[in-house]
Amino acid sequence: MDSPIFEAVPNFSEGRDDDKISRITGAVRAVPGVRILGLHSDPDHNRSVLTFAGEEDPVLSGAVSLAKACATELDLASQSGEHPRMGVLDVLPFVPLEGATMDDAVRLANRAGEDLGSLGFPVFLYGSAATASHRRALPDVRRGGYEGVASRLQDSLWKPDFGPETLDPHRGAVAVGARPFLVAFNAYLDTDDVEVARAVAGRIRESGGGLPAVKALGLGVGGKAQVSMNLTDLERTSIPVALTAVRSAAADLGASVESTELVGLAPLEAILQTAQYYLGLRELDARHVLESRLYGPSDPRSL
Amino acid sequence: MDSPIFEAVPNFSEGRDDDKISRITGAVRAVPGVRILGLHSDPDHNRSVLTFAGEEDPVLSGAVSLAKACATELDLASQSGEHPRMGVLDVLPFVPLEGATMDDAVRLANRAGEDLGSLGFPVFLYGSAATASHRRALPDVRRGGYEGVASRLQDSLWKPDFGPETLDPHRGAVAVGARPFLVAFNAYLDTDDVEVARAVAGRIRESGGGLPAVKALGLGVGGKAQVSMNLTDLERTSIPVALTAVRSAAADLGASVESTELVGLAPLEAILQTAQYYLGLRELDARHVLESRLYGPSDPRSL
Repeated sequence: MDSPIFEAVPNFSEGRDDDKISRITGAVRAVPGVRILGLHSDPDHNRSVLTFAGEEDPVLSGAVSLAKACATELDLASQSGEHPRMGVLDVLPFVPLEGATMDDAVRLANRAGEDLGSLGFPVFLYGSAATASHRRALPDVRRGGYEGVASRLQDSLWKPDFGPETLDPHRGAVAVGARPFLVAFNAYLDTDDVEVARAVAGRIRESGGGLPAVKALGLGVGGKAQVSMNLTDLERTSIPVALTAVRSAAADLGASVESTELVGLAPLEAILQTAQYYLGLRELDARHVLESRLYGPSDPRSL
Repeated sequence: MDSPIFEAVPNFSEGRDDDKISRITGAVRAVPGVRILGLHSDPDHNRSVLTFAGEEDPVLSGAVSLAKACATELDLASQSGEHPRMGVLDVLPFVPLEGATMDDAVRLANRAGEDLGSLGFPVFLYGSAATASHRRALPDVRRGGYEGVASRLQDSLWKPDFGPETLDPHRGAVAVGARPFLVAFNAYLDTDDVEVARAVAGRIRESGGGLPAVKALGLGVGGKAQVSMNLTDLERTSIPVALTAVRSAAADLGASVESTELVGLAPLEAILQTAQYYLGLRELDARHVLESRLYGPSDPRSL
């Protein structure tokens, strides 16, 4: 039995200084058993999103190394950027991947929160790791950024879960959470009318009575109306089912889908579901994929 | 730069005795650097197809170990089965996978042929490794099975490329070749009329003026008419393009495709092509797939 695999997707408050970013990510890369999957640095938001993965203990060590490096390299008091931020290491979500459950990710978030707390970071648990329902949504936890968190610290509803109950202005606080893997999938319409995208999004998203486990927004991107989706449970709504709903809702408004894009990573299962759906395949899973057999976890069945 | 990867898909003349099959495949499994991808044993044909992969030297060692084990465990003189066979190790094709070209696979086939020849196997090179055009097609090389090969040995057109010019009746001869990766993709029609499947196959296959790099046959399978396809170059004809042609040809004959199946392994690229085609994705490659980042060859770009 292979060990459960987790992903961490920390956001830290530096998106401009390549040397600092490189030293911070280097601290994670140096941890044995950690694999860096991606790094996206945004100079406007002065913020970077790092993605790394591995088994529980290496991912925990990577998170601790990252927090130490952020505290050494960054100073929130002198940081500026468009994105509301509350700490040098701002958000640290853990995502269950192969063999891991959401409960496993919640446990990992608690271990990380405890470790970061003893390093001196005030820690707020959020998402599936939240200790109260009002602390579940990330925007609520970091509302108002550093200043907002500071002003709420005396409120017993907003005490940190771990670490000091005061804020160091140089490092701030961190939100540590557990959340499902998200597939970010966007559809571009053949119109520049953002209202059409908003209407489509409103019809297909779960909160509007649409498809389960689908979040959607209508945006204007590059002169095109875009329906921007987060699919949070592919077993409940797959990519082709979401796209079919978008195409249908757009057609009702006289529009059509011109192209689509996947942002970031998608699990192989999402791609297999898609191929199976459209080809009418009787079955299709990772065992049919050459690379899964070449590089994936060994098949436990004796051959 | 990662080393080129090859697949070997040997066929050996034992499909019934599990102990012998297990010892033969165990000889390949014991070679460091070899990964067993699949084993299909067919009692009716009394024949097994083993798939294994790795870098060039381990795959060569695996092939040599396999040949020795077949010579030890099997005796062609006492073997029977429906499938025409010419040796205990009957066919040994090498397929270029990641980072490997067909020329690389031809070189590997030649190295394997030389090694098997010095072990005492008469070796006929076929496919892209063939040394003459009349020896390119596997059915021509092994026409008539053991007896056919024996009767042609005095003909200078049919001398072995390596090894002895006489046949040992216990081990026979082996065809060693290089060929492209095949995707075996079948479409089941909503009719039991095999003639419809034959007509569809005749229209879509390359030899009938249809799609490039497509071989197709019409068969009756499980009471349904089946269009059985081999796609030999997905850059020229992808799975969705082949299926679209089948659906169109079937519709012209009043039939439709009920379901499809992939037989054996498909490269990830085939699945990505399919998802990109139907979703209208602007781009999609292995870098977007989580598992490729987790388990695949490291991305050489610094992150």
